[in-house]
Amino acid sequence: MSRKDEEMLVENKEWILSAYAPQGVPTTDHLKLQTKTFTLSNDSIPDHHVAVQLLWLSVDPYLRTRMTGSQDGLYSPQFELNQVLTAYGIGRVIRSKETTYRIGDIVVNPFSPVAEYCIVPIDHLRKVDPHSNIPLPDYLSALGVPGFAAWVAIEVLGQVKPGENVFISAAAGGVGMYAGQLAKIKGCRVIGSTGSDEKVKLLKDELGFDDAFNYNKESDLDAALSKYFPNGIDIYLENVGGKMLEAVLNHVNYRARIPVCGMISQYNQVWTEREGVRNLLNIVGKELKIEGYMVGSYLNRLGDFAKEMEDHMKQGKISSKHKIYYGIESFVESLGSIFSSSNIGKVCVQVNKDI
Amino acid sequence: MSRKDEEMLVENKEWILSAYAPQGVPTTDHLKLQTKTFTLSNDSIPDHHVAVQLLWLSVDPYLRTRMTGSQDGLYSPQFELNQVLTAYGIGRVIRSKETTYRIGDIVVNPFSPVAEYCIVPIDHLRKVDPHSNIPLPDYLSALGVPGFAAWVAIEVLGQVKPGENVFISAAAGGVGMYAGQLAKIKGCRVIGSTGSDEKVKLLKDELGFDDAFNYNKESDLDAALSKYFPNGIDIYLENVGGKMLEAVLNHVNYRARIPVCGMISQYNQVWTEREGVRNLLNIVGKELKIEGYMVGSYLNRLGDFAKEMEDHMKQGKISSKHKIYYGIESFVESLGSIFSSSNIGKVCVQVNKDI
Repeated sequence: MSRKDEEMLVENKEWILSAYAPQGVPTTDHLKLQTKTFTLSNDSIPDHHVAVQLLWLSVDPYLRTRMTGSQDGLYSPQFELNQVLTAYGIGRVIRSKETTYRIGDIVVNPFSPVAEYCIVPIDHLRKVDPHSNIPLPDYLSALGVPGFAAWVAIEVLGQVKPGENVFISAAAGGVGMYAGQLAKIKGCRVIGSTGSDEKVKLLKDELGFDDAFNYNKESDLDAALSKYFPNGIDIYLENVGGKMLEAVLNHVNYRARIPVCGMISQYNQVWTEREGVRNLLNIVGKELKIEGYMVGSYLNRLGDFAKEMEDHMKQGKISSKHKIYYGIESFVESLGSIFSSSNIGKVCVQVNKDI
Repeated sequence: MSRKDEEMLVENKEWILSAYAPQGVPTTDHLKLQTKTFTLSNDSIPDHHVAVQLLWLSVDPYLRTRMTGSQDGLYSPQFELNQVLTAYGIGRVIRSKETTYRIGDIVVNPFSPVAEYCIVPIDHLRKVDPHSNIPLPDYLSALGVPGFAAWVAIEVLGQVKPGENVFISAAAGGVGMYAGQLAKIKGCRVIGSTGSDEKVKLLKDELGFDDAFNYNKESDLDAALSKYFPNGIDIYLENVGGKMLEAVLNHVNYRARIPVCGMISQYNQVWTEREGVRNLLNIVGKELKIEGYMVGSYLNRLGDFAKEMEDHMKQGKISSKHKIYYGIESFVESLGSIFSSSNIGKVCVQVNKDI
């Protein structure tokens, strides 16, 4: 291949944040798709970088929390205005001067620009084993951010023990579905709450939960928890916050653990309008441990996680459910879908076909 | 001494719980002083028991939480109706068949009946070193429940590091004053909140806090915390709950620790009428660790605590402030005083003179 052949101009579509969204679900009022011409040539690639074509994009709730424009209890740092967003992605190397990366290598990048093409530092990348028969979307789900977040919650913070009663909120979401399955593998009794009957069915019939309920149909959360947890709750994976947390605090057992992965019911309001939790006094009397976490702080355990999760997957013990959007244009719609209870499974965007 | 000489009838005053107090400060509507005749004779003492005359009684907020009659977030177990209350006390052995306990020994009993005289199992007792020159009330305060609770908060759960910013609520209370002094010894910057100007002065002038403020005079807690903690809060010792906790959550730093010793502002209401905390989302973004505790769960560290605290006391590094009530009759008044912001120092009742 001649030098000339390597050069190529492509139209590159990319998402930028044009305005912060302090409240509500971000829309095209805040997120803009722009097209820029991108020169593909080895000369334009700095040392220790490669050019990547994006194949898959992971769409997770934490992305929304980086679009608020303030720090009032949300994840930091906020995205910068008019810059290309970043997210967890999978791509294919299309230009490389590095001997360790070849054209065609499939790479995972936790900090991938939300763009069809990009030039990225190789120290952000991890190669996908070309002999693995794990489907690529599973690298965004079971083996990606949600799977790792589930494992940290159950194993590290939850310190799960066989026979314990585990309650998972947002159980059909990316983190919830793996957390429930991991707790089942550990010998727990696992109940999930979710927002539709279709998802209740998914949890019980496909993901092996002992039971599940649709919180939209429970007028009295307290009564529901009494029914599903006659012996109380030992681990509560907190994904939603607000009224659900308040109800749970009256049902957790002595020395229960509450890993706090997110509070999705609370992301779209300013904090003074969020639901107050009135029964925090349970923290004292029950000696509760409530611990917020972001997976980035547990990267030293990533190897342990990946080994365990791949073993489970090889043995067919972990099922995944993906909600796939097609084309980078669908990013804003896919992000909005996270906040709808009709959403089912881990949300991904297939940006380009893996061929 | 003849056998006859050893027998003695005494009028024994003791406090019982006659009715639970779901709300409000318990009064003589709930607590009754009763007098019973008590026979002091070795024959009436079971094996492995001694007869004790109570000298000092420790009056702590947790006692109130055991009088609610329900478990809605409060400490368990509740006191039983029409039974003599128990509390942390110091007494003098007045009858003993045990070779290890002699008449005149001074003993600490975490489960002492709130009665002038009692017969108690010796495995509840710890002897006070007769050669110690530590005043007896210090065994209820610096070396008692509040001192140990302070040490668990700062050392065990707070994992204090030099230079950190420490905020103590109810800072002039039993736990707060020792927690602040321990954090100062560790090289922290320590600010306390309390309910009167007199107590602000105590914290700054006598207990070595870097600064302190009267929360009753701060119309805007958020502004107060901005002023006192320009670099944020690394450890918050939670003693009060409600609005104070809500304000603090907006000022804690990333990876802050919040040991929850109590929430005294919340004890006297049923839970649905307690103040809701709206900004718990901070738990996620800041990766906070909020941990409730009761000192009874950390008894394996009691030796470490006692050694360290006695060392500090011998070096004059720990000051105490006691609010002493006299006579067992004053128990109900002393308990009520804990919920008044005019109270200052660790509340004790001197039941009998140590002569």
